[in-house]
Amino acid sequence: MATIKDVARLAGVSVATVSRVINNSPKASDSSRTAVLDAMEQLQYHPNANARALAQQSTETIGLIVSDVSDPFFGAMVKAVEQVAYATGNFLLIGNGYHDDHKERQAIEQLIRHRCAALVVHAKMIPDQELTQLMRQIPGMVLINRTLPEFANRCVALDDRYGGWLATRHLIQQGHRRIGYICSTHPISDASDRLQGYLDAMKEHDIPVDERMIAYGSPDEVGGELAMTELLGRGKNLTAVACYNDPMAAGALSVLSDNSIDVPGQVSLIGFDDVLISRYLRPRLTTIRYPVVAMATQAAELALALAAQQPLPDITNMFSPTLVCRHSVTPPRG
Amino acid sequence: MATIKDVARLAGVSVATVSRVINNSPKASDSSRTAVLDAMEQLQYHPNANARALAQQSTETIGLIVSDVSDPFFGAMVKAVEQVAYATGNFLLIGNGYHDDHKERQAIEQLIRHRCAALVVHAKMIPDQELTQLMRQIPGMVLINRTLPEFANRCVALDDRYGGWLATRHLIQQGHRRIGYICSTHPISDASDRLQGYLDAMKEHDIPVDERMIAYGSPDEVGGELAMTELLGRGKNLTAVACYNDPMAAGALSVLSDNSIDVPGQVSLIGFDDVLISRYLRPRLTTIRYPVVAMATQAAELALALAAQQPLPDITNMFSPTLVCRHSVTPPRG
Repeated sequence: MATIKDVARLAGVSVATVSRVINNSPKASDSSRTAVLDAMEQLQYHPNANARALAQQSTETIGLIVSDVSDPFFGAMVKAVEQVAYATGNFLLIGNGYHDDHKERQAIEQLIRHRCAALVVHAKMIPDQELTQLMRQIPGMVLINRTLPEFANRCVALDDRYGGWLATRHLIQQGHRRIGYICSTHPISDASDRLQGYLDAMKEHDIPVDERMIAYGSPDEVGGELAMTELLGRGKNLTAVACYNDPMAAGALSVLSDNSIDVPGQVSLIGFDDVLISRYLRPRLTTIRYPVVAMATQAAELALALAAQQPLPDITNMFSPTLVCRHSVTPPRG
Repeated sequence: MATIKDVARLAGVSVATVSRVINNSPKASDSSRTAVLDAMEQLQYHPNANARALAQQSTETIGLIVSDVSDPFFGAMVKAVEQVAYATGNFLLIGNGYHDDHKERQAIEQLIRHRCAALVVHAKMIPDQELTQLMRQIPGMVLINRTLPEFANRCVALDDRYGGWLATRHLIQQGHRRIGYICSTHPISDASDRLQGYLDAMKEHDIPVDERMIAYGSPDEVGGELAMTELLGRGKNLTAVACYNDPMAAGALSVLSDNSIDVPGQVSLIGFDDVLISRYLRPRLTTIRYPVVAMATQAAELALALAAQQPLPDITNMFSPTLVCRHSVTPPRG
């Protein structure tokens, strides 16, 4: 591949002049700019972003850590951050943490090594103390879906407990009392907070809950199938079930449908997140909306402003989920 | 942030020695290695990947271009490539082309600038000639889902025409003759090849096709809804419809269900790709399997071997799709 020296030689200018043109310095004259750009094209020379980053102490990249890019929830997050990157002339670097503290650490480490000045991090497994230390070291780092008290203004999170409460209250308002809950086995605050919201709403309406009304599974379709099977097996005659997320609700729906249990006629079902699939299930899934696009957009804008030491945008640090009524919830029979 | 000089000072060694330790050179003694690693930890010094890349003329990154990471098909592709990256100690850089030649070009350019030696590229809009030139310049570049004759051994693609034929033949074998087709509006070979496969199968069985049996939409749920609505409006009394992909089939299913048209009782439906959603639709979707994980894995392994000038792995350049029979296809009534 051609080097900067080849470009300088062909353009008849110094290496420093080529560098000025590449970095859009106003010191480069128009004539040398034309000569250098012509030479770059002729030699198919691509300015080395690594060298530029070293010189400028920052790369034109936003780093993003998600748990798993192939999960539609994180797919939407990636797309939102990339649209901010694209609009601001930046490039996106993505790492996956796969719900594992070691992999989360490694992914953040790689993005730091690549000198991403702006970092949006979804990491749920790294302990608070370690994450706090990283936030101190990296001024352009923003957390999404997690709040560290010391850096609350650099965190964008959702009120999960309120979401769990909202879903359960909707079922109660429709007249349900025998309401089950399908919970995620992941040991993260999203799972415990949403469950707590369910318990809050039940307690508020003096509806007793016993542990046999709650079943657990991995936060995906298969986990929802297993948890629903478990709930049916216990014979609690539930008339409604709130689910940790939409994929689990899809799995639960699949089991109910296989067993000819009509949704919502016999069992009402409510999800969480409002990912695309919820609109294409039958019945269309009533769910709780997680405003992931708005949250990821604000997190990316905040990270860029922090990295550039610019005035910070006015953002929402704690978002509220909202109810989306479709067709999977009705009042109980009789 | 701490620099390499700070590390050298604290460890009581030269900058060159720190550099040897960072790059795992056998020339560094055990005692200086320990001193340097201690100092790095104490100062929270992260070796600069940009500097290393400059020195080594390659980064530990695989670059991947997809059309849209939030599309579940591409989500699966990203995950497969990242697993290869992870297993080989590499990091993944992702760019989106968004079905636009300008954005595809820009994304490839960015990955080249970041000195990704291994590149897996899904780009359908850049003209053949330009892509051929890039393949010549970048020895570690591999194409996925596209074949350039001059570099066929560096391309991993699917026989889309065979897939379209396979879907349609399955419907014909079940006894259908009034078979519609829902096609994508994207001007890419995937769309024209799958449609051609449908036409091939119909012709082979002497079933006349007129253009009013074919409707077009964007290759997603909304496009499928519009195309199915169009087909129903034309009153052709179709008993079966083959779809460009699973999201379009999900959209079509949604319209049929809203109109109380039983699937598969009144209309059989077949998708393409076998993305996760197809298993959670009701009825479960019969579809054509696109082996995206196997293809992306092989493409990534090939790109790494090419970039490292190692012996090439024995890979499949042209994959065959297969039929997945679920519950959305039955013989026509009567």
